[in-house]
Amino acid sequence: MSQYVETQYYTFAHPPHELVLKSGIKLGPVTLAYETYGKLNAAKSNAILIFHALTGDAHAAGFHQDAKDPGWWDPMIGSGKAFDTDKYFVICANVLGGCKGSTGPSSLNPAMGKPWALSFPVVTIEDMVVAQKYLIDHLGIKKLLSASGGSMGGLLALEWAVRFPDTLQSAILIATNYKHTAQQIALHEVARQAIMSDPNWNKGDYYGKALPAQGMAVSRMMGHITYMSERSMEEKFGRKLKGKEKLGYDFSHDFEVESYLKYRGKSFVQRFDANSYLYLSKALDYFDLSQEGDLATVFKGVETKFLVVTFTSDWLYPSYQSKHIVKAMKANEIDVSFIEIDTTYGHDSFLVEIEGQSKLVSHFLNNIAKQCHCEER
Amino acid sequence: MSQYVETQYYTFAHPPHELVLKSGIKLGPVTLAYETYGKLNAAKSNAILIFHALTGDAHAAGFHQDAKDPGWWDPMIGSGKAFDTDKYFVICANVLGGCKGSTGPSSLNPAMGKPWALSFPVVTIEDMVVAQKYLIDHLGIKKLLSASGGSMGGLLALEWAVRFPDTLQSAILIATNYKHTAQQIALHEVARQAIMSDPNWNKGDYYGKALPAQGMAVSRMMGHITYMSERSMEEKFGRKLKGKEKLGYDFSHDFEVESYLKYRGKSFVQRFDANSYLYLSKALDYFDLSQEGDLATVFKGVETKFLVVTFTSDWLYPSYQSKHIVKAMKANEIDVSFIEIDTTYGHDSFLVEIEGQSKLVSHFLNNIAKQCHCEER
Repeated sequence: MSQYVETQYYTFAHPPHELVLKSGIKLGPVTLAYETYGKLNAAKSNAILIFHALTGDAHAAGFHQDAKDPGWWDPMIGSGKAFDTDKYFVICANVLGGCKGSTGPSSLNPAMGKPWALSFPVVTIEDMVVAQKYLIDHLGIKKLLSASGGSMGGLLALEWAVRFPDTLQSAILIATNYKHTAQQIALHEVARQAIMSDPNWNKGDYYGKALPAQGMAVSRMMGHITYMSERSMEEKFGRKLKGKEKLGYDFSHDFEVESYLKYRGKSFVQRFDANSYLYLSKALDYFDLSQEGDLATVFKGVETKFLVVTFTSDWLYPSYQSKHIVKAMKANEIDVSFIEIDTTYGHDSFLVEIEGQSKLVSHFLNNIAKQCHCEER
Repeated sequence: MSQYVETQYYTFAHPPHELVLKSGIKLGPVTLAYETYGKLNAAKSNAILIFHALTGDAHAAGFHQDAKDPGWWDPMIGSGKAFDTDKYFVICANVLGGCKGSTGPSSLNPAMGKPWALSFPVVTIEDMVVAQKYLIDHLGIKKLLSASGGSMGGLLALEWAVRFPDTLQSAILIATNYKHTAQQIALHEVARQAIMSDPNWNKGDYYGKALPAQGMAVSRMMGHITYMSERSMEEKFGRKLKGKEKLGYDFSHDFEVESYLKYRGKSFVQRFDANSYLYLSKALDYFDLSQEGDLATVFKGVETKFLVVTFTSDWLYPSYQSKHIVKAMKANEIDVSFIEIDTTYGHDSFLVEIEGQSKLVSHFLNNIAKQCHCEER
């Protein structure tokens, strides 16, 4: 992409785009921030929806004006890339509950004239998907060529396939799960407690005041450990010292890995809203596609074709979890390919292991597009 | 053991028991709290030293008067148990830097008339071992039949074997390592940051004031996740709800695993000193038996016999780390047995997997005692 990309906004409040949350609460007006890359063809049949992960945003590819860094999945989206914008019209929206332009706890509550904070209603993965369905309606797209996401994004793609099966030709699920395990819930709960323990968090009422920077930093430090693998941490840092020749035995910072995590923790508070982190992580923990029942029954009647990708070193969303999904799909004779890519990057692989994913994704999309002649302009 | 056990104390300050720390700082008087179980034989040849883990203490076995729970390794130590007090004289001391009776940051600094807090000097695993060597001297024991410990305790046993090889017949290293990896350092650093982020921590000066309870709780919650395995968390908690029939979608506590961790976090602050946690975790991170060099050279001349035990589900101290130790020992033709026990309990296995460990330990100790006729009274 040679041109700058700009974030767009869609705001909805009334039927048929009135949002009734899973909890029964009506929420509106709701704004979704989104970006698009490539061109929608005349038949509107070449659209691919990308879902971001927990702390991602609508800016998946290209550059904003004056920005130094491109979008979060830029190596995967663009001319000649896996999600090839010469062929496909790629859409990415910030999720409901987020803090990057879409309605969330940091948005202005019009009735109160101040940010929602904890008065924002609980939102679920299902609610996020419904909101994005309204966006796709608004863009005039009846059927998506594909939907794809890693981590939390994978859950959204999975929910979409089950909730709106007739609107989805195919889906690519990367490093994801269909319900959080006790360990995944536990890791989130520690992160939430770290944030809520910070006196500046102030029961969510910190807008315009000091931010809960310490709590956010601790939660992010822990997050980073879970996103990497033991081996990738060892290869990147090992016991390398930071700014000193030898161990001080003086109780100061010693190791590079310590200062790296602290840096990442500190910068997190600048780029993400603490309350959004609480809401989105809770939505992830709530999600259970199987509804505590048999996962196979959930996929009955689904004709979407799936590509399911995992990474050997991902201990946060280990491969066996995706295998459960694949097994349940196969029980319904769904066309699904499962690939486990051998990497050392841990859960972060979906962001950084580009070569293997690109081959799989472009091959998969080529086949899907051929079958439905969907890439024709 | 039918009788109550009592903690004893040894205080030293002068040569030959003057403690010069690795940093060069002289520290004294130093007190070590310790307990003993069984009887020292006339030849003083049946003594076994047990080292506790990060938040353990000298109370390894038996009951204190009026106590509901026994010592932390009671299923392993006692009459007819793995460390059989009918045969052996078992000693366990709280480490230097701890908070359970041994000198540490919460102890009174006699020169200042108030607790040391952060003015306490940095202590290392090596310093802890030297202090316990003084205790063993004091007890008149020239050679230990064995030394054993899990996790941090394993590091102490390993350091003893290398530092005082002629004083150690055998050693049992359980779920341990010879230097912390980047991931192990990182997990500790998050725990430290959680504590130090708590305003009540107050740069370590909280004695007699409000405790850094929130920071301690977060650090302990995270610790617990690392002590269990993904599978043991799933088997114990799964997605079971706490005190409700179904998910509230109301942003309250929902899952059992959340309230369990919170409970464990809250109770931690009552039983452990925050500054001790900082000092001991830092000592663990500093420790590197290989001194950044070849581990095999460290074991030259060591004639101690070793039993090295790991657990399949332990992801905090994975088996491959112990295998490096075993390999370096074998390169020196040291008599070492390595056993990986198949468990689901994660790192906690060394505390809860009793049957397998008991068989290995009692068999190993029997052989050692036979070889040196050390169990004779």
